[in-house]
Amino acid sequence: MEELKQRILEKGVIAGVDILRVDSFLNHQIDPHLMDHIGKEFADRYKDAGITKVVTIETSGIAPALFAGFHLNVPVIFAKKAKSITLDSRTYESKVVSFTKRKEYRIVVEQAYLSEADTVLLIDDFLAQGQALEGLIDIIQQAGAKFAGAGIVIEKGFQHGGDKLRSRGLRIESLAIIDSMEHHRIVFRDNNLEE
Amino acid sequence: MEELKQRILEKGVIAGVDILRVDSFLNHQIDPHLMDHIGKEFADRYKDAGITKVVTIETSGIAPALFAGFHLNVPVIFAKKAKSITLDSRTYESKVVSFTKRKEYRIVVEQAYLSEADTVLLIDDFLAQGQALEGLIDIIQQAGAKFAGAGIVIEKGFQHGGDKLRSRGLRIESLAIIDSMEHHRIVFRDNNLEE
Repeated sequence: MEELKQRILEKGVIAGVDILRVDSFLNHQIDPHLMDHIGKEFADRYKDAGITKVVTIETSGIAPALFAGFHLNVPVIFAKKAKSITLDSRTYESKVVSFTKRKEYRIVVEQAYLSEADTVLLIDDFLAQGQALEGLIDIIQQAGAKFAGAGIVIEKGFQHGGDKLRSRGLRIESLAIIDSMEHHRIVFRDNNLEE
Repeated sequence: MEELKQRILEKGVIAGVDILRVDSFLNHQIDPHLMDHIGKEFADRYKDAGITKVVTIETSGIAPALFAGFHLNVPVIFAKKAKSITLDSRTYESKVVSFTKRKEYRIVVEQAYLSEADTVLLIDDFLAQGQALEGLIDIIQQAGAKFAGAGIVIEKGFQHGGDKLRSRGLRIESLAIIDSMEHHRIVFRDNNLEE
């Protein structure tokens, strides 16, 4: 998605070996019109997938997920992060290990909002090692729902989580895939064929 | 806002003396089209206020704030919750005491995104005691920005935070004000004059 890639080049800040800060338009300050275009792009790519729910994780996934749900005319669920096992019979739970933040957390979705009647599009702001997506896919499977695919705003291709998931036959649509941030220069994967 | 009040009556769950759960359309599962209508309503009410930034707090304020920013054509900032003082010279910080959750937390906004050139509309999902709004107003003042007013989705009128702020001359626009939830029955304040 050209508009997104341009924004990343203009406003993204490389902070350390593998950290890209996009606080000015996605993770702290949000550009709602860019989010609308991103949501529209996800909706276009998944328009024939029979999506009934969009699912994301708090916090930064909410904005792109919300506009994807808006354009697909379906509800949006955000999984909540929890520090410990809640052992609540009314929730689905899964464990996520964050390599970036070097910590483990649990994600929780109330059972009332996901069932085997659902076909789910997962949305997240970043895909790195893919742990968050794995946790969300686990929750979808617990619900007996169908996983249609994922829509990712920025994929860190050099961390290979996306390729690992694709090699299992899962559909992962990333609007910008970064294959390298070495020498403070962002190199995008040529994914025109997917666009 | 009639559509919102109807949704609260149909889908809201009174859980305890002063807790209203709206997890099915606002706090866990989100109805993006209702959020669009809510954002449009806030934008209409503040269209002549010269708003340059919409500010909210993670997590549940993000959805209505995002659509308010969309319709006002301005960026949206969400203050991040932090457990401890970060002592970062690049951030504005304030303390919020949550009566509902009986805990204290700090909210943080990067200085880069708010300045004295800004006129701010605060958005939040709930207004009860008003502590979160007080913290956000504190941050706006630290930035030297102008506080135009607040837009609240659901105000718990019986907890009086909104009236306290209004009595100080602050503009607080709530789309639904609940004056009582006694006997498991929701009574809205007649705020048609404000609509």
